[in-house]
Amino acid sequence: MIELKPPYLLFLGDVADMVTAKTACGLRDWAGDKVAGQWRTSPQTIDLGLPDMDAESAAAAGVRSVIVGAAPFGGRLPPHWAAALAEAARAGIDVVSGLHSKLAGRPELVAAAEEGGARLVDVRVPPPGLPVGTGQKRSGKRLLTVGADCALGKKYTALALTREMQRRGMAATFRATGQTGIMIAGGGVPLDAVVADFLAGAIEALTPAAAPDHWDVIEGQGSLFHPSYAGVTLGLIHGAQPDAIVWCHSLTRTELDDMPGFAMPTYAEGFARTVEAARLTNPAARIAGISVNTAHLDEGEARKVLAALEAEHGVPAMDAMRFGVERVVDAL
Amino acid sequence: MIELKPPYLLFLGDVADMVTAKTACGLRDWAGDKVAGQWRTSPQTIDLGLPDMDAESAAAAGVRSVIVGAAPFGGRLPPHWAAALAEAARAGIDVVSGLHSKLAGRPELVAAAEEGGARLVDVRVPPPGLPVGTGQKRSGKRLLTVGADCALGKKYTALALTREMQRRGMAATFRATGQTGIMIAGGGVPLDAVVADFLAGAIEALTPAAAPDHWDVIEGQGSLFHPSYAGVTLGLIHGAQPDAIVWCHSLTRTELDDMPGFAMPTYAEGFARTVEAARLTNPAARIAGISVNTAHLDEGEARKVLAALEAEHGVPAMDAMRFGVERVVDAL
Repeated sequence: MIELKPPYLLFLGDVADMVTAKTACGLRDWAGDKVAGQWRTSPQTIDLGLPDMDAESAAAAGVRSVIVGAAPFGGRLPPHWAAALAEAARAGIDVVSGLHSKLAGRPELVAAAEEGGARLVDVRVPPPGLPVGTGQKRSGKRLLTVGADCALGKKYTALALTREMQRRGMAATFRATGQTGIMIAGGGVPLDAVVADFLAGAIEALTPAAAPDHWDVIEGQGSLFHPSYAGVTLGLIHGAQPDAIVWCHSLTRTELDDMPGFAMPTYAEGFARTVEAARLTNPAARIAGISVNTAHLDEGEARKVLAALEAEHGVPAMDAMRFGVERVVDAL
Repeated sequence: MIELKPPYLLFLGDVADMVTAKTACGLRDWAGDKVAGQWRTSPQTIDLGLPDMDAESAAAAGVRSVIVGAAPFGGRLPPHWAAALAEAARAGIDVVSGLHSKLAGRPELVAAAEEGGARLVDVRVPPPGLPVGTGQKRSGKRLLTVGADCALGKKYTALALTREMQRRGMAATFRATGQTGIMIAGGGVPLDAVVADFLAGAIEALTPAAAPDHWDVIEGQGSLFHPSYAGVTLGLIHGAQPDAIVWCHSLTRTELDDMPGFAMPTYAEGFARTVEAARLTNPAARIAGISVNTAHLDEGEARKVLAALEAEHGVPAMDAMRFGVERVVDAL
């Protein structure tokens, strides 16, 4: 598995807007206890309200990883970002990135990391040595967020559930399968980049046998109904062998995002196909809740829609961001 | 896509038995028109009944690829095999291998290939630049062999169907998704080694739009019921968007091979789940036949079993190796 070393310094470069810095915002919101500060290289850079640091002050403060928390224009690390990151690496601080262009492909960073004894961690690159899945049942409990489509809040829902479970004193660990999730969790596996034969095995390794009352809360990917990515989703379901499935749906989409002609599945279809798939490795798999985004509705309408979903499907329905996830955790 | 250049010389090294040389046997049986000869490096080497050649005579005869057709003990190319293959590469002949240990990892081969202007082709390595699947319907017809489990004759069945279709003058192309199939077809994509996000897209690229009456006959992989590899199978089904599915089953297995505790699906389960998956990208997908191995039965019993399968499931049932595939092709 990928493993990152806290505390983190969030590198923002000269990015001036929140959208481009959404990775850093996610880390501040969901991994605040691991974040020591922000690194802004210009006066225009946005302020996340964190202590300002650079390579020198971060090294003095014991920071162990600088995380590239903003996407540069064009996706490629600009030379002045690379120079700043090289300074951190030379000071012995790991450099972590989820950008498409790899840190390991920049000779100046490779040299600096070698000199400082630091690591360059590209979180889009899967760790070596992933096993083939066995399908053998593991101890401990697992919850998986599964979506009708991509981009329906699977990561957010899993994070919110983990936080609520931990707040109640339950033993729960968020398990990340995508790059932002990996940075938040401090580890994980970038499932979309794993070689196909190791899909299920990667998830088995990510969520190993645990104490009987421990919950792994696993970030879902893709959709069984998506013509590009369904294979990823099926491998994830089989490897996760979930006891509880939280189904993420949309109240407004009629077709898959960016996939004209591909209809959204109904809730019933989604439940049936997901449980059918999951029961191959866990005969007790069941739908434990529904997660939707109600932002387009006023509060009264939103609560009515959630109540109607609950009445129709017999499981708790929630808007994790708006009303919390308590009802789903209650029912586990 | 991987593309190999015929004619081929089959390299057998000093392998003395058929089982270890099964890749070469497959090439002789299924791609005989592309095979110019065999290369035996010792008097004990088995004889496949092909003209004997070495690097020098192969180059003179216009051979363009030497294919490692036998598995060395331990899986790693022995030094005297590498020396012989380097000679071929220096003579400008491509060297092709499906071994786990990569040709590109042997400096002496890399140097020889550079000197001779030859390619080193590791057919376990997917080609770069595979696309993400789109799910868009392509012209032409597609048949996919899908199995209840691994190792149930999916490749053999697809090859036999292609040969029979071509014999009748139908436009048909075998499309390979595994290493031996790729060598036989002279191209293809090693699906098990493709990065997960590109599973469906790799198959879309492998079986592009074609004339309306042209059949791509696609080699299946894995099984939807296999806890290690089902994701690969689902991506393959979605990318293939098959019009016709030939279901490969076993008359004797009760559990998946090497997967104790995982029951073989029934024919009905297999049909239902496969067609359900396939209809995401081709609403007309249907089961077009059943393929089983009857080698453990005498001829009368075998014919009785096939007739019973046909009566029960309403599609032609065949033992491709024993009785041919005509009834399935008749029904297309």
